[in-house]
Amino acid sequence: MLGAGSTKYGKLNESIIEIALNASKDAIDSAGITPKDIQAGYISNVFGVADRQVHMAPVIMSNLGIPHVPGLTIESACGSGSVMFREAYANIAAGFYDCVLALGVEKITHTGTTQSTTLFSYCSDFFYEGGNGASFPGLFASMARVYMTAYKASEEDLAHVAVKNHENGILNPKAHVRRKITVDDVLKSPVVASPLKLYDCCPFSDGASAVILCNEEYAKKSARPYVEVIGSGRGASPAAVQAREDITTIPSTVAAAKQAYKMANIAPKDIDFAEVHDCFTIAEIIDIEDLGFFPKGTAAYSIREGATRRNGEIPINPSGGLKSKGHPIGATGIGQVVEVFEQFTGKAGDREIRNAEYALTHNFGATGASAAVHIFRRME
Amino acid sequence: MLGAGSTKYGKLNESIIEIALNASKDAIDSAGITPKDIQAGYISNVFGVADRQVHMAPVIMSNLGIPHVPGLTIESACGSGSVMFREAYANIAAGFYDCVLALGVEKITHTGTTQSTTLFSYCSDFFYEGGNGASFPGLFASMARVYMTAYKASEEDLAHVAVKNHENGILNPKAHVRRKITVDDVLKSPVVASPLKLYDCCPFSDGASAVILCNEEYAKKSARPYVEVIGSGRGASPAAVQAREDITTIPSTVAAAKQAYKMANIAPKDIDFAEVHDCFTIAEIIDIEDLGFFPKGTAAYSIREGATRRNGEIPINPSGGLKSKGHPIGATGIGQVVEVFEQFTGKAGDREIRNAEYALTHNFGATGASAAVHIFRRME
Repeated sequence: MLGAGSTKYGKLNESIIEIALNASKDAIDSAGITPKDIQAGYISNVFGVADRQVHMAPVIMSNLGIPHVPGLTIESACGSGSVMFREAYANIAAGFYDCVLALGVEKITHTGTTQSTTLFSYCSDFFYEGGNGASFPGLFASMARVYMTAYKASEEDLAHVAVKNHENGILNPKAHVRRKITVDDVLKSPVVASPLKLYDCCPFSDGASAVILCNEEYAKKSARPYVEVIGSGRGASPAAVQAREDITTIPSTVAAAKQAYKMANIAPKDIDFAEVHDCFTIAEIIDIEDLGFFPKGTAAYSIREGATRRNGEIPINPSGGLKSKGHPIGATGIGQVVEVFEQFTGKAGDREIRNAEYALTHNFGATGASAAVHIFRRME
Repeated sequence: MLGAGSTKYGKLNESIIEIALNASKDAIDSAGITPKDIQAGYISNVFGVADRQVHMAPVIMSNLGIPHVPGLTIESACGSGSVMFREAYANIAAGFYDCVLALGVEKITHTGTTQSTTLFSYCSDFFYEGGNGASFPGLFASMARVYMTAYKASEEDLAHVAVKNHENGILNPKAHVRRKITVDDVLKSPVVASPLKLYDCCPFSDGASAVILCNEEYAKKSARPYVEVIGSGRGASPAAVQAREDITTIPSTVAAAKQAYKMANIAPKDIDFAEVHDCFTIAEIIDIEDLGFFPKGTAAYSIREGATRRNGEIPINPSGGLKSKGHPIGATGIGQVVEVFEQFTGKAGDREIRNAEYALTHNFGATGASAAVHIFRRME
């Protein structure tokens, strides 16, 4: 990974193409290359229809002045970015390309909360879930209830996730919601789907993030700082939550992590920080157990003790996560990778995790029906 | 390619997931495998939102009884199927998987012609084209006008493409529009965007097509008839038609074909039949010149002489093409590959091209902003 760029996440006024171009140009500049060095474009996006542009690759490549460069769009709901990154990675690893643009983008807030919620519900197993009123807050609330009962966790424990991610997001100039909150603020925020309250939920965001991915030889030749991808895995779960045996774990995360650790030949304890999928506070708790950072049922306790804060044992979501940085769904997975690049190349400012060598990103689609995990190493 | 299946193309009443499952099950049966042999799912689809289901892979895999198998959706407008096939192929070729499901699906007709047309316009460069009233019939009409002027082709020449494809489609039980038409019928059909008339345009269709793709060792072990992929290429053009130097050629086709021929190490004259992207009659004329079957400006003449009929020098669209078989946009590119499989495994019935050894598929997105070409060899 030779460069990375991102727009601010939030309510953006530019068109989806302008947003995408802004992140792409940042990534290109950051990599010290020019558009003509790009051999293919991998784009992740879910609801291009919302801003009236699908078939986005030709439009983006044409606007970058490289209309002959082929591209495509990959969709896997909120996990689109990480799943797309894996395809871009696979194509480089297989020798099909030397240097590609991996770009995630979403523009949704202009449709309003009702229309956004309707569109997002199409990411669930619509026959069993969305079409019967099972919204994402409701589905994650079910997971939270079962988890809280099984492992004696409390609403305060969930709130600690939000407080910590906001604490980090304040230090991220690109974050959507940069506001210090307290456990009490979370507990007193309006109930969305009990036990989840407003501050347990990530926002709807617009935004784009992009990275330049190349093979090792290309990176070395550039004589610039780069970040190595050393592991990658993909997994799947039964689409509908009701079809899962245990809803305090997400099978796709477990499978993707297993593959990624195996490929990287390292263990969860070797990871120095992770960006994980915290669409709701309960998700982060489940994620960090599924990723092997904490034994099953203990994460809530460890979070309370500060283990996931920037100076903790395993910092989680130093960027602010989906909760504070924001969740432009097609961009989110790439945004996590951008954070790793910035952390490992001295661009993370006050949120830098000192002496970190290995980082992990984890991003899933819908309630975790699809997921991808990537592991990165800092290069000196 | 070890198996292939397809639903009928046309106006279908089942849900998008049911349609997808029907084609998938056909392909699985055709390959003599069971769902548990599938290691990944590659899906192509453009407007899942129209039937309220995106993030389709987990839903399809769950319904096939293999919820742990990861999948993703690839979109490249009307060229989604062939672009997706290439990614599936690349992943197999690179050794990431031994056996995958490559499935294209679309369900759109229930939204009505107006809404379908609106959605489809999002596949153009919306800023320059769709958003300013430049619809696909209008854009292809511009290409037709320029071509007709430059190469002295006539409206009758365009009509011959439609007549020939309907002639083939009558023999295809899965085709959407199975009706013999004459040149006169085409000329007298209502004008859509002069010089294109109703019968110069393909229909909006629902449908799904699927193939089972595996590595050579896997195919050989199966001791079943299979079809070999020997070449594959991808290309891109300036997104907006107005930005192209010459609109009687499609740069993405030329680039994709060049790559595919080079990889297959064969020449256009070696191809025994081809499935090409005839969204409008003019497109087929441009395609078969861009693919190298006829010198520039001569295709219309050759078509008139019967060169592209089933018993001609180079049969084009024996399936009936988009014009008669139909155009369920996310499925179209895979439907072409299904036709090759059926032709090469004795399943094409009366439309079989005798003694064919090499076949080519060509599928593009929108006005050809993206395209992919694949070349196949019959195995004895």
